[in-house]
Amino acid sequence: MDKAHIAYFKKLLGEDNAYFDEAHRRAYSYDATRKSFLPDGVLFPRDENDVCEILKFCNAHQIIIIPRGAGSGFTGGALAVNGGLVLGFEKYMNKILEIDLENLVARVQPGVINSALQKEVAKFGLFYPPDPASMEYSSLGGNVSENAGGMRAAKYGITKDYVMALRAVLPSGELIRAGKRTIKDVAGYNIAGILIASEGSLAVITEITLKLIALPKLKKTAMGVFDSVQSAMNAVYKTLSKGVTPVSMEFLDRLSIQAVEQKFHKGLPTDAGAILIADVDGNVKESVESDLAVLKESFKDCNAREFRVAKDEAEAADIWFARRNCSQSINIYGTLKLNEDITVPRSKLPELLEGIEQISSKYGFKVPCFGHTGDGNVHTNVMIPDKNDEKQVQKGHEAITEIFKLAVNLGGTLSGEHGIGLSKAPFMKLAFSEAEMNLFRAIKKAFDPNNILNPYKMGL
Amino acid sequence: MDKAHIAYFKKLLGEDNAYFDEAHRRAYSYDATRKSFLPDGVLFPRDENDVCEILKFCNAHQIIIIPRGAGSGFTGGALAVNGGLVLGFEKYMNKILEIDLENLVARVQPGVINSALQKEVAKFGLFYPPDPASMEYSSLGGNVSENAGGMRAAKYGITKDYVMALRAVLPSGELIRAGKRTIKDVAGYNIAGILIASEGSLAVITEITLKLIALPKLKKTAMGVFDSVQSAMNAVYKTLSKGVTPVSMEFLDRLSIQAVEQKFHKGLPTDAGAILIADVDGNVKESVESDLAVLKESFKDCNAREFRVAKDEAEAADIWFARRNCSQSINIYGTLKLNEDITVPRSKLPELLEGIEQISSKYGFKVPCFGHTGDGNVHTNVMIPDKNDEKQVQKGHEAITEIFKLAVNLGGTLSGEHGIGLSKAPFMKLAFSEAEMNLFRAIKKAFDPNNILNPYKMGL
Repeated sequence: MDKAHIAYFKKLLGEDNAYFDEAHRRAYSYDATRKSFLPDGVLFPRDENDVCEILKFCNAHQIIIIPRGAGSGFTGGALAVNGGLVLGFEKYMNKILEIDLENLVARVQPGVINSALQKEVAKFGLFYPPDPASMEYSSLGGNVSENAGGMRAAKYGITKDYVMALRAVLPSGELIRAGKRTIKDVAGYNIAGILIASEGSLAVITEITLKLIALPKLKKTAMGVFDSVQSAMNAVYKTLSKGVTPVSMEFLDRLSIQAVEQKFHKGLPTDAGAILIADVDGNVKESVESDLAVLKESFKDCNAREFRVAKDEAEAADIWFARRNCSQSINIYGTLKLNEDITVPRSKLPELLEGIEQISSKYGFKVPCFGHTGDGNVHTNVMIPDKNDEKQVQKGHEAITEIFKLAVNLGGTLSGEHGIGLSKAPFMKLAFSEAEMNLFRAIKKAFDPNNILNPYKMGL
Repeated sequence: MDKAHIAYFKKLLGEDNAYFDEAHRRAYSYDATRKSFLPDGVLFPRDENDVCEILKFCNAHQIIIIPRGAGSGFTGGALAVNGGLVLGFEKYMNKILEIDLENLVARVQPGVINSALQKEVAKFGLFYPPDPASMEYSSLGGNVSENAGGMRAAKYGITKDYVMALRAVLPSGELIRAGKRTIKDVAGYNIAGILIASEGSLAVITEITLKLIALPKLKKTAMGVFDSVQSAMNAVYKTLSKGVTPVSMEFLDRLSIQAVEQKFHKGLPTDAGAILIADVDGNVKESVESDLAVLKESFKDCNAREFRVAKDEAEAADIWFARRNCSQSINIYGTLKLNEDITVPRSKLPELLEGIEQISSKYGFKVPCFGHTGDGNVHTNVMIPDKNDEKQVQKGHEAITEIFKLAVNLGGTLSGEHGIGLSKAPFMKLAFSEAEMNLFRAIKKAFDPNNILNPYKMGL
């Protein structure tokens, strides 16, 4: 990095907020992909004005900027693949600025951790529903940039459904505001809409206004056990078509059940084809009970061999234990996990899972699946027995490519919630036409003509 | 229009689908603004392929295209201010293509009328909530292009909350697909998100996939009468903060009440400051009753002098009569109505209405207000006694400008649901910075480099 540039950043931000040493660069070279690319430096802006100044300077000097949330992304969105400066928000821009009880919105800086907001608003009887599995450590800035999902999406939607307004800085250093603290706002193009899920490649988000809702007063957890994953998927459809949308409706396939049981000895039915776990909520007892009755009927209609409603929170936690520990348990099947978050229309879930089973047989890898049936989002894990065997790894990637193709052919998407970033970039051509890719590039150029913001990600 | 171009379109579409005569041009020169601009011709594409061919040709020959829904827009979005060819979808591209009961989505062509979809899905116990006042005649293509709202927005959101996927044709003639039939989809930039509310200026929408929900089984209507509009606004906030979100929560101010009464003699309380009308819905009796109890308590806490729940549908229709007939009734106050659909954060409604009263006094015009309190969307009507008095009209526009400034200063928007189009274009600078306007222009250019799609609208 040019010494004059280093001097500029140290003067602008102070010695303590601009680092160019090996240790800091190394610390900010990773994300949840476990890949590592050394950035040229790490900057901690103190406020929005710092962000403006940094971007103006970087734009003028063609210095790459990588906005970074908590580095918990699964697709390398925050990795400095082409060098450049990482922008960290965890040191200063991590405040909940306002909880507006009259309009039911929260105004936060990008570095706020998802669960911190959830806890804070719960004190006021309010609810911020998006709950990515990373919510204890992922930042809201990252959540917005990746359009994070979670378990509650079937009923409550995903991050984009809660972003009312954004403040962001363009690569030119100019501040823009997008959206309003109103449900309705149709003036001008929907800039907030396109910044969501743009993976830090269009502008740097400096402030987020999020919609809050009233926290439902009651919640119940139920579980169903099925002989086949197909019966379980039918039960999901049956429930939804009766007008009941559980908060979450999660499934574990046979391999996942067996893995959790082998690791934790919880007495799970290891001969079952699938387990469905559903939460229903509401404000009135009769309404929650009515939902549970529909759930029971739908599950029984689809040959559930067992249906159980948790008596209390402890029993609910026990039911949820299996789902929450899937991800780590399936490591018994291999030393390398190629996990993807493909999503298909709900009705295509049985077909998707059948197809995955065929791919699993063809390649000889175990492919445990679990995830969010309520919204068709399946976490697919191709387990590679020996991560040091290059041939195996290569075959694993071939299997993943087939799974992507299958999902796209079923009308699904490459990514339900992890984003594209670096690791899914090679698959963009499976899902998008040349005209569509060119449009993405033209939009990128409209925001960032010098290509300084997280460049070359998303296959662009 | 160049004779060779006319010949091209007649050959491409057939004589019956490409019109360049005075009568057709005149018929397609209007929209709900009652302004008139003659287009150079009117084309009726038979299918998506026609749209591709038309755009490719127009792009090559720099011919302006104005995609048109039902022409029911209030801001001139479909007016041919700079000539060009109007693209009409009502003749062929007006089909409901699919109602997918498994994934709860509908796939429609842009020319389908909003209420036609509502009626069709209701047959299956399903619900498409967005209900602009124009729903009996406005098209879904137009609804998407303007991001139409309606009365149910407070609980169910607006058009953008239901658009899952779009097919659209770029000015180049290339087809793009955006979004999926899945709740979660984070691959690539959110193109569907930016096409919504883009007023036909970025691409021509050829197919829309809309989310459906289960039709709630029960609905109840309640009415409250308040001495002041401020008490009514407080009652709205109180209700929402208790976790109850009515489907709609509409208000009439004193002038609106008096106008309806003068015209229809319904026995409305003409000395009241405001009436609130609220619908609550649900699937379980106890839940609806619990909501009504909260409504009653909140209204009483805010000094409602009357609270009434409709016993049956006839009584509910009677309560709604006042609200539904506001718009026509207030014509007693003038021969010209300058109506705007400003929106502010809900908590700012009392301040907004106070400010409007001051502006009304200052200019000496009656300004009846009514609309959607649940989402802060107020229909503000500056009534000009004599539309032929240029001075009065001029003063009316000055009053409107002050109202816009007030709304923007309160954190609101120029338009909650009507869009910007032509008539609000001069006010864009009140709401957006030069950087924001330049970004809009850059996005426009990314989609439409030759500026052939509905150009010069939205203040661009």
